[in-house]
Amino acid sequence: MLKNSSEIDITRVTQSKIKDVDFENLTFGNVFTDHMLICDYKEGKWQKPIIKPYEPFLIDPSAKVFHYGQAIFEGMKAYKDENDDVWLFRPDQNLDRFNKSAIRLAMPEISEHIFIDGLKTLVDMERDWVKKGLGNTLYIRPFMIAIGSGVIAQPSTQYRFMIILSPARSYYSGEVKVTIAEHFSRAANGGIGAAKAAGNYSAQFYPQKLAQEQGFQQIIWTDDATHTKLEEAGTMNVFFRINDTIYTAPVSERILDGVTRKSLIELAKREGIKVEERSVLVDELVVAAKDGSLKEIFGAGTAAVVSPIVGFQYKETYYELPKTEDSIALQLKDKLTKIQYKLAEDTFGWTVKI
Amino acid sequence: MLKNSSEIDITRVTQSKIKDVDFENLTFGNVFTDHMLICDYKEGKWQKPIIKPYEPFLIDPSAKVFHYGQAIFEGMKAYKDENDDVWLFRPDQNLDRFNKSAIRLAMPEISEHIFIDGLKTLVDMERDWVKKGLGNTLYIRPFMIAIGSGVIAQPSTQYRFMIILSPARSYYSGEVKVTIAEHFSRAANGGIGAAKAAGNYSAQFYPQKLAQEQGFQQIIWTDDATHTKLEEAGTMNVFFRINDTIYTAPVSERILDGVTRKSLIELAKREGIKVEERSVLVDELVVAAKDGSLKEIFGAGTAAVVSPIVGFQYKETYYELPKTEDSIALQLKDKLTKIQYKLAEDTFGWTVKI
Repeated sequence: MLKNSSEIDITRVTQSKIKDVDFENLTFGNVFTDHMLICDYKEGKWQKPIIKPYEPFLIDPSAKVFHYGQAIFEGMKAYKDENDDVWLFRPDQNLDRFNKSAIRLAMPEISEHIFIDGLKTLVDMERDWVKKGLGNTLYIRPFMIAIGSGVIAQPSTQYRFMIILSPARSYYSGEVKVTIAEHFSRAANGGIGAAKAAGNYSAQFYPQKLAQEQGFQQIIWTDDATHTKLEEAGTMNVFFRINDTIYTAPVSERILDGVTRKSLIELAKREGIKVEERSVLVDELVVAAKDGSLKEIFGAGTAAVVSPIVGFQYKETYYELPKTEDSIALQLKDKLTKIQYKLAEDTFGWTVKI
Repeated sequence: MLKNSSEIDITRVTQSKIKDVDFENLTFGNVFTDHMLICDYKEGKWQKPIIKPYEPFLIDPSAKVFHYGQAIFEGMKAYKDENDDVWLFRPDQNLDRFNKSAIRLAMPEISEHIFIDGLKTLVDMERDWVKKGLGNTLYIRPFMIAIGSGVIAQPSTQYRFMIILSPARSYYSGEVKVTIAEHFSRAANGGIGAAKAAGNYSAQFYPQKLAQEQGFQQIIWTDDATHTKLEEAGTMNVFFRINDTIYTAPVSERILDGVTRKSLIELAKREGIKVEERSVLVDELVVAAKDGSLKEIFGAGTAAVVSPIVGFQYKETYYELPKTEDSIALQLKDKLTKIQYKLAEDTFGWTVKI
């Protein structure tokens, strides 16, 4: 965290609102902690970060984020172990991806000092908001928006980096049925699909709504040119288990380099589970579903960790997956969460104490 | 405009800032008029619109526009004729496209009453900001953003529609050389390229920056799958004149249904100029450039109206266009602007008096 108070201006709330929060009945992403971090970029450099009470802020109606969508974010979590220590999970990966997103959207990169040290200082102040027990987390949302004014389609010269925190319970999405995208798509070749850019998400809402109206909770996205390659599931990376091998699309301009995705791959390898990073074709999935070799499909992402999928629709046919006794998805989820909560040894060096 | 004051709450500035504005030296999109229109959507319906002094507003750090990019806009202009009457150009087309963008981004549609009548009321209040003389306009920016809070990737339930106004001089971008996109792209099949969505613009900034570093002011976008079809130029639609026919890509999921584009097509037809809406291939353009049948390339959009292009680069070769005495681009621009400023008869019924 930040070494001394001269590196950051801190204004504390006079009264915490933590007593008003029902931690047993949290809906994801709706409650925020007492403080937030703000760091502005202007005149070519990042200014001194501040931590202050969480509250609305003033912004010009012509701010470029509203008109041209310069906005990127990360999703991370903090976990509390049995000794009341608070841990982050691979924050270096988030910083790295955040800066890649920044470059792709012509936004300024941010230093480890502001991103990581700022985040640690903020989470440390809010450690009472991180509850013990598997499934309880503090969701961390670092983001950057273009706050410079002017309705001309050019990159902004002023930006705001912020971190806000939201306590979360384990994210159970119910039984997830998916439909495979035959028309809509989430990313173009040479586009921004690999960036965690705000614009990528709103593009999914309408197709998602249509899918939900048909009884599917998520869409499995396919490549936009041919709709033959399976890419992501909703806002998550997606894995397919055929016989005893798990497959997931390789990282590309269209595929987000997910931290959960890459951690599951490394965990699988350690556990001796066969894993291949290659495109899985829709036709291949249908054949595997029909001959019974398709055992599991699961999404992977920070919010839900691992989200098992019970079946998929393609060209108006619904394929139900078999019930598995030996779910690789749940096995990997268990290994991963135990590392995150310090219930198992972290042989990878992924966890970082605050 | 709005029939009576009960339909809109108006708060006027105590002192106009118009006297401080140097109308001879405006840079595009940086100066705003005294007032703005705001209309909020909540609990499933649009609230009463208000007009108030232009100023920053408060927004929650977790507002969905910052995280998931639900943001759309339109670009329009008002023109003042010699009799001091103020005119809009095809505002129905902007409303129609705005609502199509809204649907694609899972945002609520807006009524003609709020969009058109609200706009007329606002522009009428600011008519002193619309200056006479060809090239002087009042640029109009209607936009909608998701203001509902919560960091979960779902459509917002609260939105803000706004109209802000910016006086503009004729937009001269200098001599425009373009490079044809061989790697990056602006839109996916099944994506949001046809919507005037904020996220589409930030995606272009980085490729645009690379192009500028190589000495090109704009990029001509190609289809993302094969990079063989010519699609748009920067943030404009693009036309190619080969011999005496002008070509432009047909409207699709990847091509914006530009108001200037469609107006130029109709004008060309009236003038007996051959015009075809079909994809032009990069190879075709190179052949035409080599054999001299490629006469003109020009962008078309509200801000610049018509933007002639002097040459293009493809695969490291630069193709300079011939100087034309009988530019169709400039001929169409002249016809169009004369209609907009009421200097020629509007046989199409495109102009709408405020």
